[in-house]
Amino acid sequence: MTHPLRLGIAGLGTVGIGVVKIVTQHGKLLEARTGRPIEISAVSARSRSQDRGVDLSGFAWEDDPVALATRDDVDVYVELMGGSDGPAKASVEAAVAAGKHVVTANKALLAHHGQELGEAAEAAGVMLRFEAAVAGGIPIIKSLTEGLAGNEITRVMGVMNGTCNYILTRMYDADLPYDVVFEEANQLGYLEADPTLDVGGIDAGHKLALLASIAFGTQVNFDAMELEGIERIQIEDIEQAAEMGYRIKLLGVAQMTGRGLEQRMSPCLVPATSPLGQLEGGTNMVVVEGDSIGQVVLRGPGAGEGPTASAVMGDVIDLGRGLSIPTYGQPANTLRPVRGVKATKPAPYYLRLSLQDKPGALAKVAAVLGEAGVSINRMRQHGHDDKTAPVTIVSHKTTRDNLDVAIAGLEATGVMAGHPVAIRIEEV
Amino acid sequence: MTHPLRLGIAGLGTVGIGVVKIVTQHGKLLEARTGRPIEISAVSARSRSQDRGVDLSGFAWEDDPVALATRDDVDVYVELMGGSDGPAKASVEAAVAAGKHVVTANKALLAHHGQELGEAAEAAGVMLRFEAAVAGGIPIIKSLTEGLAGNEITRVMGVMNGTCNYILTRMYDADLPYDVVFEEANQLGYLEADPTLDVGGIDAGHKLALLASIAFGTQVNFDAMELEGIERIQIEDIEQAAEMGYRIKLLGVAQMTGRGLEQRMSPCLVPATSPLGQLEGGTNMVVVEGDSIGQVVLRGPGAGEGPTASAVMGDVIDLGRGLSIPTYGQPANTLRPVRGVKATKPAPYYLRLSLQDKPGALAKVAAVLGEAGVSINRMRQHGHDDKTAPVTIVSHKTTRDNLDVAIAGLEATGVMAGHPVAIRIEEV
Repeated sequence: MTHPLRLGIAGLGTVGIGVVKIVTQHGKLLEARTGRPIEISAVSARSRSQDRGVDLSGFAWEDDPVALATRDDVDVYVELMGGSDGPAKASVEAAVAAGKHVVTANKALLAHHGQELGEAAEAAGVMLRFEAAVAGGIPIIKSLTEGLAGNEITRVMGVMNGTCNYILTRMYDADLPYDVVFEEANQLGYLEADPTLDVGGIDAGHKLALLASIAFGTQVNFDAMELEGIERIQIEDIEQAAEMGYRIKLLGVAQMTGRGLEQRMSPCLVPATSPLGQLEGGTNMVVVEGDSIGQVVLRGPGAGEGPTASAVMGDVIDLGRGLSIPTYGQPANTLRPVRGVKATKPAPYYLRLSLQDKPGALAKVAAVLGEAGVSINRMRQHGHDDKTAPVTIVSHKTTRDNLDVAIAGLEATGVMAGHPVAIRIEEV
Repeated sequence: MTHPLRLGIAGLGTVGIGVVKIVTQHGKLLEARTGRPIEISAVSARSRSQDRGVDLSGFAWEDDPVALATRDDVDVYVELMGGSDGPAKASVEAAVAAGKHVVTANKALLAHHGQELGEAAEAAGVMLRFEAAVAGGIPIIKSLTEGLAGNEITRVMGVMNGTCNYILTRMYDADLPYDVVFEEANQLGYLEADPTLDVGGIDAGHKLALLASIAFGTQVNFDAMELEGIERIQIEDIEQAAEMGYRIKLLGVAQMTGRGLEQRMSPCLVPATSPLGQLEGGTNMVVVEGDSIGQVVLRGPGAGEGPTASAVMGDVIDLGRGLSIPTYGQPANTLRPVRGVKATKPAPYYLRLSLQDKPGALAKVAAVLGEAGVSINRMRQHGHDDKTAPVTIVSHKTTRDNLDVAIAGLEATGVMAGHPVAIRIEEV
């Protein structure tokens, strides 16, 4: 196998250019490790004329990614355009149909169409690889599908959206409100074109859905995820959490229960001194727990040109070496469909309420919580000078079901001056 | 490829029994992920009669591991006996010669004979895999040879001996002297038959030598390593380090320099709040730095039945799936021979001296350090009631060469009441 492995790269943004740089600058290293040269045959992007700071003149150009994906001189189609549908989906389907291997960084595509794409790739006898789609440069897909494949996986957790973690970290460090930091992040170019993908937890949720599929041998089921973004986190929550020794992180947790698959991506309080609590800025962390391994933690850069390109190249080198494993670690047509369930394990919750400043308001709150079976560990009413009284409560351990009953009850009291904010406390 | 992958397992200690348990208890899971059944054909150990708590009656027994390794019904020889020579080496050589793949947890074997074994395996067209040999259950070999293969690796660091980390952590937590904790560890069965392998840093050094070979494409060169154990660490050092905000860890560092390969395994002071500083007990941590990835950190259990068996099974499943890559990530006969160099980058050092209680002793120390170009950041002479005066010094950044000159000079002053202890401070 000394003929070159020939790539067609669609999408020349940060990551695409990162891949071009590695292939052109590390030719000898890649050949020594892969056992054959790695070359770029052709590239595609929206604008041909844009100066991207690298010389692309040695590669054929295609305006149409579908045409690129099916070229005779392409062995591996590298899809780095993004988007769950449109050209990304069409070109990946075309590549598979043409018998090309595919490497993609596209979490949205796989979270929505991963089952059919996985089945199509396996039927066509080609590989569909997506290390770069989850947690940037961290080799978590490889660790889960290969290194830890001897384990029954019991739980996967992670902080996997660098933008959210940047916002939450910056709010804490600079004591700034959400809106200000959101705008900063926007100015810095950290946010997706549709920022809801980031701050709504959707991007991180896509990643968690892919990890869950591999971990539990289930079909990707993003729609069944309990999903909550960071938009309702206020500086008061960050300060209160800090006072109690916690940080707030957008944390994903997936575990199999007797009733179904628990998948949730939501803000959580985690101990400030824990590895998750100490995670700063754009760094990602994934925690895997299995019956033999116990716990393994992987930490690294969750985005950016170099780290994401590194993950893409890991997949490319695998293909050059002839690696052959199913997309999700076992054949896609053997993955079980699964239904989603809410968090089953009781946990303490942090609650922030805004009460109308009326006599008896606090008593009503306490009564509602008690009726729902949510018992109070700590309660604090803060000084205030307007017509609403902020109250923070930390509950004893309770189920999400009981908590939801309590929140519905609170909303019905007529003493609330806004929606309650509830954040789970994870003692990770 | 639906015929079973058949294992022959030599060595039925903790890890061997762990592998037997996974294979017998997770048959369906392994078959789904591997695409074929995994079976055990035969086993071998020193004593056939010993009760190991698992049913071995379904497997053929061989007294001789060489006979086991070459059986017709064995596809993969799993060597879990240990030892750099003797039956381990003989049986691995026999397996390779007989065209069997090999999976081993034997770091000593590979650190001493890795080059010839790697070349032999590749010449015979079989795979030699050793994930379990380094950092227990952490998939670090896979991450380095595969996931991060697109990177020029710049540095690898790690805490990779759980016993040393247990001893150092326990000394700090319980404020106990080295000898007492060493004896505790011995009673708990944490120490190798030859404890120098652990506390002398040799076991961890073997692991670092293997990582360096993969990271830098160089021949395994354990003999060129700067190696120092934890035997000279006293409770005073731990206390002094803690007062300054540091913990002491047995830390391995490997990096390529212009003059050769720097490989050192030695006690270091690391910041107490850093991930390495917070590492407790038997947990291992490996840090990999590469030109594209930046930094990735992997943390997990460094030893034990489940974690080590998990790593063995990762390799076994790879073989069942038909993975084919060279032992060290590139063909063994392309690995460059390399010479070792001392730490080149200047660092601050912690020094503990025991001085004879004579007038002018401290002045002599200061003079010797100054002449060697080692400048003092902090110096402290402690209260004492015997005839020797303990002195601790933290230097400004200095090279290891200058420090060695200074230490030789100190020894020659005639005022020392014991050998100086020098510990590098790593701001990791």
